[in-house]
Amino acid sequence: MDGCFPPPKDKLIMQPESDFFSFPKMRWTVCHIRELMPTKQVSRGIGAPIPFTYAKDDNIDAITFQPLNSEQEMTWQESQSANYTDGILILHKGQIVYERYLGCLDKLGQHAAMSMTKSLTGLLAEILVAEGTLDENAKVTSIVPELKDSAFGTATVRQVMDMTTALDYSEDYADPNADIWIYSKAASPLPKPQGYDGPNGYLEYLQTVDKSGAHGDAFGYKTINTDALGWIIARTTGKNVAELLSERIWQKIGMEQDGYMTVDAKGMPFAGGGLSAGLHDLGRIGSLVLNKGKFEGQTLFPSEVVENIMAGGDKEVFAKAGYTTLPGGSYKSMWWIFHNANGAIAARGVHGQTIYIDPTAEMVIVRYSSFPSAKNSKIDPTSLPAYQAVAEYLMNKD
Amino acid sequence: MDGCFPPPKDKLIMQPESDFFSFPKMRWTVCHIRELMPTKQVSRGIGAPIPFTYAKDDNIDAITFQPLNSEQEMTWQESQSANYTDGILILHKGQIVYERYLGCLDKLGQHAAMSMTKSLTGLLAEILVAEGTLDENAKVTSIVPELKDSAFGTATVRQVMDMTTALDYSEDYADPNADIWIYSKAASPLPKPQGYDGPNGYLEYLQTVDKSGAHGDAFGYKTINTDALGWIIARTTGKNVAELLSERIWQKIGMEQDGYMTVDAKGMPFAGGGLSAGLHDLGRIGSLVLNKGKFEGQTLFPSEVVENIMAGGDKEVFAKAGYTTLPGGSYKSMWWIFHNANGAIAARGVHGQTIYIDPTAEMVIVRYSSFPSAKNSKIDPTSLPAYQAVAEYLMNKD
Repeated sequence: MDGCFPPPKDKLIMQPESDFFSFPKMRWTVCHIRELMPTKQVSRGIGAPIPFTYAKDDNIDAITFQPLNSEQEMTWQESQSANYTDGILILHKGQIVYERYLGCLDKLGQHAAMSMTKSLTGLLAEILVAEGTLDENAKVTSIVPELKDSAFGTATVRQVMDMTTALDYSEDYADPNADIWIYSKAASPLPKPQGYDGPNGYLEYLQTVDKSGAHGDAFGYKTINTDALGWIIARTTGKNVAELLSERIWQKIGMEQDGYMTVDAKGMPFAGGGLSAGLHDLGRIGSLVLNKGKFEGQTLFPSEVVENIMAGGDKEVFAKAGYTTLPGGSYKSMWWIFHNANGAIAARGVHGQTIYIDPTAEMVIVRYSSFPSAKNSKIDPTSLPAYQAVAEYLMNKD
Repeated sequence: MDGCFPPPKDKLIMQPESDFFSFPKMRWTVCHIRELMPTKQVSRGIGAPIPFTYAKDDNIDAITFQPLNSEQEMTWQESQSANYTDGILILHKGQIVYERYLGCLDKLGQHAAMSMTKSLTGLLAEILVAEGTLDENAKVTSIVPELKDSAFGTATVRQVMDMTTALDYSEDYADPNADIWIYSKAASPLPKPQGYDGPNGYLEYLQTVDKSGAHGDAFGYKTINTDALGWIIARTTGKNVAELLSERIWQKIGMEQDGYMTVDAKGMPFAGGGLSAGLHDLGRIGSLVLNKGKFEGQTLFPSEVVENIMAGGDKEVFAKAGYTTLPGGSYKSMWWIFHNANGAIAARGVHGQTIYIDPTAEMVIVRYSSFPSAKNSKIDPTSLPAYQAVAEYLMNKD
């Protein structure tokens, strides 16, 4: 995007998605999703932002940690490039102690949050549950009758929120007939190819999902649960997730920038992964959660919302999913619960996206990144122990 | 976009463009362009907006005027619905005296500016000329060599800015072989259909435009001039129009909201018509122009920029274009000059979009609308005399 327009062919990043999400093009794409796809605004409103205060501590760069499954120590600073970090922010007691922009991100940019979007959708649902407008024990079909004949119909709202639904749905990217590809075609905002007779949009797709097994038996990380939750939220409140995020969160905590969400061809926001937002603004979200719904003297939602999430989900059903870098963890309301000594939780997205919230260290870390592999299990070795090392450093400073 | 998702089929607004720009669907589309197409942010930055002060005057609703070619008087208030107004703002001496949101717009929304975008592109070019970084007498080919073999190559920058280029280009929407359709296909951000071998993007299209006649002879309102100017600006500054608008204007005058611009499949913003922005924020642009580049004590650009525009273009070449509702007018740097007693100028876009700037009355009117017909000649009869009547009312109040 500069005066050298048009860019040379090898630097042109365009549809289709298989091109723009390929590495290394992805390193640009994650900061420019809206230039490739239709999006819906998550409005911050028109008031003045509430600026952060700074208590910068450059000693953080030299903090060392031992990566998982490695004998060689690494510094915090070294972990930035190891993780293809695009932007990183550390808040301690609400103040910015560390902040770096690398890769495609700057302070006026927004970065793809990927599956961290799920945690915000889950937070909205948990708020509605705490306020009594959404019954976590209700069957989904009683709220969204259109889902009656799908696997979701017989699940409870809570099972959808915790992803313990029993879905006949494969995310095996190597299998060209996997459900993920049918889902992707349905979700694409581009006009459908001639002759296409599959589902159009998230909502039509969700109605086609069959059941496999018994709800509640196992955790299965499947994005379509979040899209179903987005529909449940929309039907409950009369507002889709983008609108509700704006009304309940974005307009309330002094955000610097609008966020935005990708949409399907019918305008439904992608509740399972469509958000892009600024680095500071995800820091504000982390602070809001750390402070259990309190922000600058206001109470946005009851503290039980965060207490429920932090209490975590069922560790046994989580263990069945076999996440080697998250032993003893759980998943609750679309947040990852580490069940570590500090009681840390996280919003996580592919390619290394994280909001890491440590209530004991009173610390929030936001990392945007574009790690070549989607799998967080490859990024966790140089990030999870790094977060813990920074937490310990900050606790010792107090 | 509400909890009744999915919307019933007759209320679904989707690609292709021929559907979403049809009336009455267009009445929704004009506030939701970004939900249908990829867009590029025009960032306001992250500072606090500078709020307007209010001096509301509800007597304005009762002001009467005589529509062009009509003997029946109409009130200002009646003109709102006659013009399918979505939002209207009147500033007098920098204060808001009148403001209404109707149709799809509200104070947190952005509306399609349509060809008002041209006036902002023209303003940027005029700023670069005044600052000496762009030579208005240079041949286009000396700045953008890729345009050497097109009609633009032999035109001067000034001829492009004033749309007096001689282009073999037809905008006859009734002719399926008209150039406008080839241009639209090139400009579409959607992946090209299989077998398509035409130009892809604004820049490839511009290189195919042939010459017809002599440059400088006549005014011809052709959007592709603005796209060529956008390219000239990008090559001159290293920034495309969206980036430069942000840097030079949006971040400087306390904007409430980001704007955004549609882009082609390669990410080039649509300099000729792609902007969407908030109502108040176009009011700030109007104030900036009215005050000849001064804003809250800062000087954003030399006063000669606006003085050059207000002086107007060649009335004789303009007259040849036959605009019946704009007798004695001219077009300069992509602004419409009325050459009336008050020295008014305007940014104008199809379906009734206007920033009307009256320096004598110290008045700016911004109207966003979704009039069923694209042609402003159908909207002018109930708007131009209305603007003049409000100007006279405000002058008499002083």
